[in-house]
Amino acid sequence: MRMYDIIDKKKYKKKLSDEEIRFVVDGYTEGSIPDYQMAAFLMAVWCNGMDEEETLSLTMAMAHSGDMLDLSMIPGTKVDKHSTGGVGDKTTLSVGPIIASLGIPMAKMSGRGLGHTGGTIDKLDSIPGFSSDISDERFIEIVKTVGFCDASQTKDLAPADKKIYALRDVTATVDDYSLIASSIMSKKIASGADAILLDVKCGNGAFMQDVSSARKLAECMMNIGKLSNRQVNCMITDMNEPLGNTVGNSIEVIEAIDLLKYGFDSDKVDKRYSDIVLYVCREMVLMSDIFKNEKYENTTEEEKILEAERIVRETVEQGKALQKMKEFIAAEGGDSNVVNDYSLLPKAKYIYEVTFDRDGYLDSVDTKEVGMASLMLGAGRLKKEEEIDSAAGIRLYKHLGDKVNKGEKFATLYTNKEEIIKEAEVRLLNAYKVSEKANSTKNVIIDIIRQV
Amino acid sequence: MRMYDIIDKKKYKKKLSDEEIRFVVDGYTEGSIPDYQMAAFLMAVWCNGMDEEETLSLTMAMAHSGDMLDLSMIPGTKVDKHSTGGVGDKTTLSVGPIIASLGIPMAKMSGRGLGHTGGTIDKLDSIPGFSSDISDERFIEIVKTVGFCDASQTKDLAPADKKIYALRDVTATVDDYSLIASSIMSKKIASGADAILLDVKCGNGAFMQDVSSARKLAECMMNIGKLSNRQVNCMITDMNEPLGNTVGNSIEVIEAIDLLKYGFDSDKVDKRYSDIVLYVCREMVLMSDIFKNEKYENTTEEEKILEAERIVRETVEQGKALQKMKEFIAAEGGDSNVVNDYSLLPKAKYIYEVTFDRDGYLDSVDTKEVGMASLMLGAGRLKKEEEIDSAAGIRLYKHLGDKVNKGEKFATLYTNKEEIIKEAEVRLLNAYKVSEKANSTKNVIIDIIRQV
Repeated sequence: MRMYDIIDKKKYKKKLSDEEIRFVVDGYTEGSIPDYQMAAFLMAVWCNGMDEEETLSLTMAMAHSGDMLDLSMIPGTKVDKHSTGGVGDKTTLSVGPIIASLGIPMAKMSGRGLGHTGGTIDKLDSIPGFSSDISDERFIEIVKTVGFCDASQTKDLAPADKKIYALRDVTATVDDYSLIASSIMSKKIASGADAILLDVKCGNGAFMQDVSSARKLAECMMNIGKLSNRQVNCMITDMNEPLGNTVGNSIEVIEAIDLLKYGFDSDKVDKRYSDIVLYVCREMVLMSDIFKNEKYENTTEEEKILEAERIVRETVEQGKALQKMKEFIAAEGGDSNVVNDYSLLPKAKYIYEVTFDRDGYLDSVDTKEVGMASLMLGAGRLKKEEEIDSAAGIRLYKHLGDKVNKGEKFATLYTNKEEIIKEAEVRLLNAYKVSEKANSTKNVIIDIIRQV
Repeated sequence: MRMYDIIDKKKYKKKLSDEEIRFVVDGYTEGSIPDYQMAAFLMAVWCNGMDEEETLSLTMAMAHSGDMLDLSMIPGTKVDKHSTGGVGDKTTLSVGPIIASLGIPMAKMSGRGLGHTGGTIDKLDSIPGFSSDISDERFIEIVKTVGFCDASQTKDLAPADKKIYALRDVTATVDDYSLIASSIMSKKIASGADAILLDVKCGNGAFMQDVSSARKLAECMMNIGKLSNRQVNCMITDMNEPLGNTVGNSIEVIEAIDLLKYGFDSDKVDKRYSDIVLYVCREMVLMSDIFKNEKYENTTEEEKILEAERIVRETVEQGKALQKMKEFIAAEGGDSNVVNDYSLLPKAKYIYEVTFDRDGYLDSVDTKEVGMASLMLGAGRLKKEEEIDSAAGIRLYKHLGDKVNKGEKFATLYTNKEEIIKEAEVRLLNAYKVSEKANSTKNVIIDIIRQV
């Protein structure tokens, strides 16, 4: 088998066999296939696409390119969630403790932020003592005892995906459904979950700009799930404004804890954020073993959905999820007192109040720009190697549809870089457009697609 | 300007500007654009094509990537010819002396053989003392004094094309009309000719397999000529069997000299070969300054064609072309006595007579396989670095349409590698298919397309 012939086949829109795709993935990962041949191959895939079977082959070849986490020692269905990334997305931080408090094991691997999008691991790292760099044994131990563990993706988890993604990133071959879907799914499959809930973000702060693209990606990933015998459900959620009131790291941890502390209906909690957490949790409960019990034999699907929502609300109201958050933080070496005392989290040297510069109703926001303003303040990174500042970020007091007045309190900037404040302020304010009257705002949950 | 954005544009089928294409070619040549980005770009071009203007930009950027030969010191229109390559194609070796003997300056740069196709420089190198590695000054001097010079392409002639071609060769992006046309034309333009006759070979021994592909490539190159103000005419000629009676190096030199010695109508000369030489010369005469004379003011195009053919025949009959061949060989350091004494050329240690193994009429031949059999005997190379054996090759006694009998003399193999003879014999014989009755054979000249 020769890489040349495989490139030639794909270029002529011929279908590749599972063996050929494995040859490409293994050869590139071990280094026998050079970057330039892989780049030509990826562009041929970008131009001509891959069918369902080819996409599955690519996914499985990448999943098997490194360690496959074996979660079989943890009893029951292991449910995982994955978000395609956005601005202010701290959902996992609230969801993990809620799910674990319901007795559903959640073994999650998360990534770091890049560009305008944040990463769960960066947020967790703002907790003093917390370390996401843990061994497989300890990871499984925590899931078994606490019920929720979130570790950073290790070098050996789908290394092929890591290497291929780095090449796609510099050869303009990122934006292809098959390649995106196989990249996400290879990591999820290698992480060993039985059931996966995918939160496909869509809008100007997300990778997928519109609903039809998000739906196409969702279908592509659900197909991989179906063909690889994993239960995969998808939510399509709106990312046309930052999620919640905070964009950063330690301030997002606080917002996630606040939800567990004050509940879904508190006015201290952003409605869009609480909605996403509620529905993500509900869907994960539906995918778990909870209803695989003879007690629910005669329960209709509609009743199960209502019951799932009820128990999610209940575990938060009873303080069980908050208690689980403490256990989770402690298990990964963090100081669980942060839950009661936010002053233990890193604090920014400069806290700057932004007032709005126009009158009107918030009509739209370039969400990516808000992410970039937060990055400028220190909360993000442009390149993988860069350090981030846990204390930096933006707290927003207004959302789309809200009335704003000139001079009114609009946001707080947190940073340790005084020189950048003015520029970040301008970037933040310029990201917003106002209108003379309030336009209707979108529901954060756009669609929920369940495997049948 | 960023290479990433240019790849992205081409991938989305957007037109690239001249500036963008120059950025790609210059960046890749100097090394600031890495192989993997260029590979992705080339595949995007392969999949989405380039329009006429983009192809012209690519051609000119590659032509200007190194030295541009300035032939202005040579008076008159400099006419060049180029063949897209095939098996047994020694046309230049007869054409050069004929054209020069008519007072038309011909300044030619030629290449070496690769794979099943031979190269003019390899053939010339079989002449004792001959050196095609000459300085620009000497090159121009020879064209001025002798009228014909053939030099090997130097490192500095269109280096971008050399580097890009090497990458295309390993990324399955060779077979694209715009890329092939710009590769050929960039070298021709850098070599400084005013008028170019292109011999586009088509058939199973050529790069273009069928007439419609050959026509498409011809049109593509003529377009570049038109847009760059160079007169470019094309011949489409058949390569469904080796050209002439010989495939190799020194034996092809002999065949080329034989034509000059015995003339176009001699039965010592293969009809297909003499046809190609005659028509190539005629077309070059038509492109030269010969008819740009007030004496021909009232001559019709038809009359000019007849007159061109007549003077080509005359210069050969009068022995002027043969005399010019001697001068040409001597000018490039070769022993011109080879013209009268073929025994001065390298001789193979093993000369093996092949008899045919079936009865019938030669119906078709896999021409590439004949080239590969010759390569096995030592006359060709699979990789650029490999040495070739000037004495090796195949002499054929039968052509398509001929009656063949089992046991009849069919070919002579020349080689210095005894161990390979049997295998080469089998490969040669297996390349031929016979039929029960003689099928009509194709004319070697398929079409002549002149710029209007």
